[in-house]
Amino acid sequence: MITSTRAKRNQNMDVEKVFRMTGGTGDNSYAKNSSYQKKVSDMVKHITMDALQQVYLALAPKSLGIADLGCSSGSNSLSIIKDIVESVEAASCKIMIPAPEFRVYLNDLPTNDFNSIFKSLPDFYRDLNKERSGGLPLLFIAGYPGSFYGRLFPNDCLHFVHSSYSLHWLSKVPPSLYDKQGKPINRGSVHISASSPPLVSQAYYAQFQEDFSLFLRSRSEELTAGGRMVLIMLGRIGPDHVDRGNSFYWELLSRSLTILATQILLNFCRGRLKGKT
Amino acid sequence: MITSTRAKRNQNMDVEKVFRMTGGTGDNSYAKNSSYQKKVSDMVKHITMDALQQVYLALAPKSLGIADLGCSSGSNSLSIIKDIVESVEAASCKIMIPAPEFRVYLNDLPTNDFNSIFKSLPDFYRDLNKERSGGLPLLFIAGYPGSFYGRLFPNDCLHFVHSSYSLHWLSKVPPSLYDKQGKPINRGSVHISASSPPLVSQAYYAQFQEDFSLFLRSRSEELTAGGRMVLIMLGRIGPDHVDRGNSFYWELLSRSLTILATQILLNFCRGRLKGKT
Repeated sequence: MITSTRAKRNQNMDVEKVFRMTGGTGDNSYAKNSSYQKKVSDMVKHITMDALQQVYLALAPKSLGIADLGCSSGSNSLSIIKDIVESVEAASCKIMIPAPEFRVYLNDLPTNDFNSIFKSLPDFYRDLNKERSGGLPLLFIAGYPGSFYGRLFPNDCLHFVHSSYSLHWLSKVPPSLYDKQGKPINRGSVHISASSPPLVSQAYYAQFQEDFSLFLRSRSEELTAGGRMVLIMLGRIGPDHVDRGNSFYWELLSRSLTILATQILLNFCRGRLKGKT
Repeated sequence: MITSTRAKRNQNMDVEKVFRMTGGTGDNSYAKNSSYQKKVSDMVKHITMDALQQVYLALAPKSLGIADLGCSSGSNSLSIIKDIVESVEAASCKIMIPAPEFRVYLNDLPTNDFNSIFKSLPDFYRDLNKERSGGLPLLFIAGYPGSFYGRLFPNDCLHFVHSSYSLHWLSKVPPSLYDKQGKPINRGSVHISASSPPLVSQAYYAQFQEDFSLFLRSRSEELTAGGRMVLIMLGRIGPDHVDRGNSFYWELLSRSLTILATQILLNFCRGRLKGKT
């Protein structure tokens, strides 16, 4: 009964309310610990900017709508906007038309630290202005909180969607990680490990399929005809269900959590024993 | 020289970076101390909703853009959105057309506590959904940080602008509160008091005129043709430059600040005397 209740609680856990990158600018913040994510984004920057320029040159809108899904906080959130503005301005120079008005939609879950991004905006605008002779373009940056596994933006308002290192996060704990009695089928692991039964990877895969379909359906309402998306996410190279690339980190995390849980359980038992004596 | 430097510092103080209502939900937060502002807004709610319905019925847009300028944080920020949605839905029912898509633009200075508003959004949507049988309308709520004394939103995107208890805040300390030598002409007061020379009220008036003109110019680019604004702000009844209505609070604040400044000065002098002995 307890297991079944816990399973239900895990399945229904409101990810939108509890999941976020650590805010602020402290030592443990995402802002101070996201150089790897920046590197990943930089590695494919030429693809992102090529796709963006192609959309812009094909549609040449007077007002360009761009969304960054899973923007988080810290310098990565705004550095991509700077790249986008400069890239589109270069393209508009090429075809001798005025740069468009930029509508930038920053999205992350409602518990994300949007305050940190917003506080740094006056300096961001000032620095962007300093580096150019022709003055700032019309640039409107907004925060749109919510899960990207659902509607986020008005109909047909976007020309370009960018999402880096976010879409591998699922909307919830896959329900089929629990059997009919509510017992976890991946006991002792928090990831697809070498000891996990094949049903585990199937559970994650099914959840990803459901989530990603919803993601695409939602974006299809928001993207204008001819719009494009660049989606950067973690994947695996082959069909082998054990991911050799990242499993090292998950293994460490899994062991740490097991030790932590054992210690909590031990302390709880000790407390109960003391209470009885 | 010191006075002149201080005058310049006061004049150039970056209000956008330092001025805000107290965030969070603690005892001193705006969220816990804004029942008066709610009362003011409620007093004229019928005017606000009438104006909104008139715009909607005249233009009947499929996508309705609404901005709240100076949204701050706390329950007031979202309660006005609920009223707006219900009012427009009632109007659309009357003329037998489907309710529009709602684009809601929440604005305040970049240091405002947008995180608090965003965190309460999932519950807000849930409660709004609970109270109706026909399901939620398409409702997109975004945060647009920045000073309303300048551009905030894309061109022609708004049908209705609402601002309650915000527009009496000026963009900066009026420069002409200092004479040519940089000395304050309103010495001993932080407001237009009975002892203030006429130049003081002229200084505040000139700053308001400059700010409000910029406000109107900016909104005129953002409001679509036929759009409307309801602006609720503090004013004075007659031409007398001493405002009898609110001066009581300013008088108290002025005296408290004077006592505080005297104490700091005394402690500073004592410290210097001790250092010399």
